[in-house]
Amino acid sequence: MTTLKSLIQAQRHGHALAGRFYNDEAIFREDLARFVFQHWFCVGHLSQLPTRGDYRTVDIGQESLLLIRGDGEQVNGMLNVCRHRGSRLCASGFGHATGGRLVCPYHAWSYDLDGRLLAASQMAKDFRREDHGLRVLPVEVVEGLIFTTLSASPPAFDDARTVLQDCAGTYGWGRAKVAHREMYTIHANWKLAIENYMECYHCQPAHPSFTRSHLYARPAEMTAEADQAARLRSSALGIRIEDLDGYATEARPGQESVSILRSAMAEGMRTASKDGAPVAPLMGAFRDYDGNSTYFDIGPLSDFLAYPDHGMVYRFIPRSVHLTEMEVLWLVDAQAVEGRDYQIDRLTWLWSVTSAEDKKIIEWNQAGIRSDFFVPGPYSAQERYAQRFTEWYLKALGA
Amino acid sequence: MTTLKSLIQAQRHGHALAGRFYNDEAIFREDLARFVFQHWFCVGHLSQLPTRGDYRTVDIGQESLLLIRGDGEQVNGMLNVCRHRGSRLCASGFGHATGGRLVCPYHAWSYDLDGRLLAASQMAKDFRREDHGLRVLPVEVVEGLIFTTLSASPPAFDDARTVLQDCAGTYGWGRAKVAHREMYTIHANWKLAIENYMECYHCQPAHPSFTRSHLYARPAEMTAEADQAARLRSSALGIRIEDLDGYATEARPGQESVSILRSAMAEGMRTASKDGAPVAPLMGAFRDYDGNSTYFDIGPLSDFLAYPDHGMVYRFIPRSVHLTEMEVLWLVDAQAVEGRDYQIDRLTWLWSVTSAEDKKIIEWNQAGIRSDFFVPGPYSAQERYAQRFTEWYLKALGA
Amino acid sequence: MTTLKSLIQAQRHGHALAGRFYNDEAIFREDLARFVFQHWFCVGHLSQLPTRGDYRTVDIGQESLLLIRGDGEQVNGMLNVCRHRGSRLCASGFGHATGGRLVCPYHAWSYDLDGRLLAASQMAKDFRREDHGLRVLPVEVVEGLIFTTLSASPPAFDDARTVLQDCAGTYGWGRAKVAHREMYTIHANWKLAIENYMECYHCQPAHPSFTRSHLYARPAEMTAEADQAARLRSSALGIRIEDLDGYATEARPGQESVSILRSAMAEGMRTASKDGAPVAPLMGAFRDYDGNSTYFDIGPLSDFLAYPDHGMVYRFIPRSVHLTEMEVLWLVDAQAVEGRDYQIDRLTWLWSVTSAEDKKIIEWNQAGIRSDFFVPGPYSAQERYAQRFTEWYLKALGA
Repeated sequence: MTTLKSLIQAQRHGHALAGRFYNDEAIFREDLARFVFQHWFCVGHLSQLPTRGDYRTVDIGQESLLLIRGDGEQVNGMLNVCRHRGSRLCASGFGHATGGRLVCPYHAWSYDLDGRLLAASQMAKDFRREDHGLRVLPVEVVEGLIFTTLSASPPAFDDARTVLQDCAGTYGWGRAKVAHREMYTIHANWKLAIENYMECYHCQPAHPSFTRSHLYARPAEMTAEADQAARLRSSALGIRIEDLDGYATEARPGQESVSILRSAMAEGMRTASKDGAPVAPLMGAFRDYDGNSTYFDIGPLSDFLAYPDHGMVYRFIPRSVHLTEMEVLWLVDAQAVEGRDYQIDRLTWLWSVTSAEDKKIIEWNQAGIRSDFFVPGPYSAQERYAQRFTEWYLKALGA
Repeated sequence: MTTLKSLIQAQRHGHALAGRFYNDEAIFREDLARFVFQHWFCVGHLSQLPTRGDYRTVDIGQESLLLIRGDGEQVNGMLNVCRHRGSRLCASGFGHATGGRLVCPYHAWSYDLDGRLLAASQMAKDFRREDHGLRVLPVEVVEGLIFTTLSASPPAFDDARTVLQDCAGTYGWGRAKVAHREMYTIHANWKLAIENYMECYHCQPAHPSFTRSHLYARPAEMTAEADQAARLRSSALGIRIEDLDGYATEARPGQESVSILRSAMAEGMRTASKDGAPVAPLMGAFRDYDGNSTYFDIGPLSDFLAYPDHGMVYRFIPRSVHLTEMEVLWLVDAQAVEGRDYQIDRLTWLWSVTSAEDKKIIEWNQAGIRSDFFVPGPYSAQERYAQRFTEWYLKALGA
Repeated sequence: MTTLKSLIQAQRHGHALAGRFYNDEAIFREDLARFVFQHWFCVGHLSQLPTRGDYRTVDIGQESLLLIRGDGEQVNGMLNVCRHRGSRLCASGFGHATGGRLVCPYHAWSYDLDGRLLAASQMAKDFRREDHGLRVLPVEVVEGLIFTTLSASPPAFDDARTVLQDCAGTYGWGRAKVAHREMYTIHANWKLAIENYMECYHCQPAHPSFTRSHLYARPAEMTAEADQAARLRSSALGIRIEDLDGYATEARPGQESVSILRSAMAEGMRTASKDGAPVAPLMGAFRDYDGNSTYFDIGPLSDFLAYPDHGMVYRFIPRSVHLTEMEVLWLVDAQAVEGRDYQIDRLTWLWSVTSAEDKKIIEWNQAGIRSDFFVPGPYSAQERYAQRFTEWYLKALGA
């Protein structure tokens, strides 16, 4: 693709991507092959697959993946495509492999929970079952969070594991459950959704509720003092999580992209609720509210946000050039009881409001970028992570 | 298309087609031009056009064809596209050419039932009406079944005529009528629908009702004895139809693909009904039930199945790369009276259930095959006709 | 695009365009870039933007334009795309720029009504606001009609201005208002919609109501006498508008395409109403009905039709290869009061009926032209303007 190469070379440093990166179907296919499928991404929480044989499907691009609970805490990942004639094995959603077997609904080829072919009738004498297992994917489970990748040689997961243990570990996500789950369908290229998530320059104009409760909505230089105070409150509670910038092009060589960013809540806000009051029991190592919050990211598609009483998982899912899905999970402590310890509407209020706002502005962004006359402008200081994301992306596509 | 050539060369013998054959729009266009449009296909039954001037439209790909009853048993075929500026002449469906003329709704050019231009006002002095008739298509009508082709040099129809006389003739379809008609919209490439029809490896897992009543659902080696017994019962009734394999690559040189396959009904099943009991009066040469059934095929898109009391016509219609239609006709004797001699729901039960099952599994197959990671597996012995269909197809595309 | 060049060369003189011109997405993009975007087109009437800061958006292709009322009668045109990251600035439809500013909903960059950037927070030290204004478009306002273009070097507007002053001026459109507005969505290539508008060969078969009231539906040689009589009645009322043919390839060098064509109403018809009776107060220079009507056109997309008591604006809007919108405006004198001086249903009857008929036949035309076997036929004498439109178009695409 000479066109792609020349497009990359024509990019102006510090400026938004040219429109074709968001509109061209051939480039979308390159996005998947060269970038998205080469990284790790979160596919849910272990509490969603409580029993051996429980599975969920996960869509990405045109792919359907299967995550199946195996023995103990093990989760197996595989392509949800029969090795015979290519039928989907399992219907979309959550399910259970009865009898510890996956049986294709078309011709009844059957597989065990590791993806090995167990039976296929009427095949030729020289047919070898061991050559016809499902395509198996690497899986990592850390502090309840499940990750997989479609890459044959993915980046190392060590830094990611450390970040997850520090953040998800401290906040007790390994003993959490999914209290609520929401799917957002965004009619825009996936990169616009990621850029939106990676900058808070838009928070003041577009997210009044988030802005009221989170200092992150303000320029960094205005929040240094409050952030310092929040860090001291965390320390006093024995909570020690340090900022870490290994995001995108700053990832350590050979390691998956990771970052941790701690940011103070607005004054009087103990958590991300309408009035700042708690919405669920304290989690993990927390014995009190520290007025702090922890953003962390693994790879390009998976973002997390932890409060002392609940956690957020954001899964960005490229589907087609102008279609992106976002799955949002709300985590609470596994022992918390709905109705008694938390109410869904109070728990989910802020990020329901904010995600709906994001869907709208991302779609407006896409609508404008369809113009043949769009001239990309410069990123502001407050968009430095969005900018770095695009530089990372361009590097991968140009490789 | 070097890509197409290299894709064809990369095909592994005895294995399913690579995913791109089912997903690529450019290949779909080649499918139509090099294969589908080069063959004959069934476009309905004469009883659907009882009177001179009656017509039906038939869609295939982006094409709309017009089949018009002419004098006697003659049916004229033509493109449903005005030779002036390209408007459709007739609305989709069944209709009647009032006054024995087709008048374009746009500028009123009018044609006779043979497609000859009769009138066009305001044209230049040197305009020749005889140069501006509709594109006429060859039509064959045998035992009530109407066939056409878009090919300028189609395969000879002799073998097809013989098969139709033997099968449709013996079962009395020349004196039949359409008791019911159903259109199925299948969100999958047309080749997956054909492969599905051409194999019964999937019948046991996917079609419990069909499997209960038809021995064809079982591997051939298990049904030899029952098939032999059924043949003797047929002979005793004077019914002599022999199996014939001229399907696909086995067609005689220059002749259209044809096949006849007789297969016994399950024990106690006289016809394809819920309880095996008759659903309509005996047809054609049948004086009693022989516990047998006759599958026959003409070209790649048209399949037929005959029972002593009713007949089935399956018309597969490629529309776009991921959209296929299937028109199913239920035939009964022309003298049979609905309500008295047959009930639609009893008559249509099995193939309504089975066609709905097929739609679902074909669409699941397509969903899986959209994966970029799909690796085609080997066909089983019971899928030999599906395999032969793909070999026929590849030969046509590679030519 | 060698294909495009060879397609153009293969065109047969005096014949309709080959099907690919109406079906190919790549050609549609060329249509916009080389032809549509190089011309002027009408974007509404000044009465729709009565106050400083009022705006409307206008879609064309994938573009969204912004027309904003400035000081006095000035209208500013600009691209509705933020110069920062490409978000749409204003929601589709009509609105008002509060405080005389346009503020981007994404990151709050703000612009004045001329499109100059007023404020952008958090930008780098060397950021120059004067380099980041909106893309400004030329705008012409003549006799209440607003025109713009996306061309960097559009044809001169002098001839267009003269035609508008003669026609819209005489009919008093500068003191008119929009009584009704309708959007038609036509599932067809935009060129089929234009060709339909540019010929009345189809009027007798397809538009019985129009044909009853307008002599234009008949071949020119049959209406010469009546047209002459109508001209004399106009003169007697002091109305002097002369036919002018500068349409398409007949435009004066460097000037936008223009035309004026006067045509008599059918006997007893004073205006375009069901019974021929007036539907609104006389407009402009008219003191009585002259039994005449005036068709005029500017550029390829904008057509107008004037009666003594009301005016019609037809805006053709290419959206995608098979999608065209048509906005129709009904103008009456600005002083006329709905309910007292005119009723919407009486006013709009003829062109509601006729536009719905056109939508249907244009879509039928497109359906037929999707056929791979469509052979373009010759234009009739009554289609000479449609033919000339295609010649103009081919010349632009081949340049």
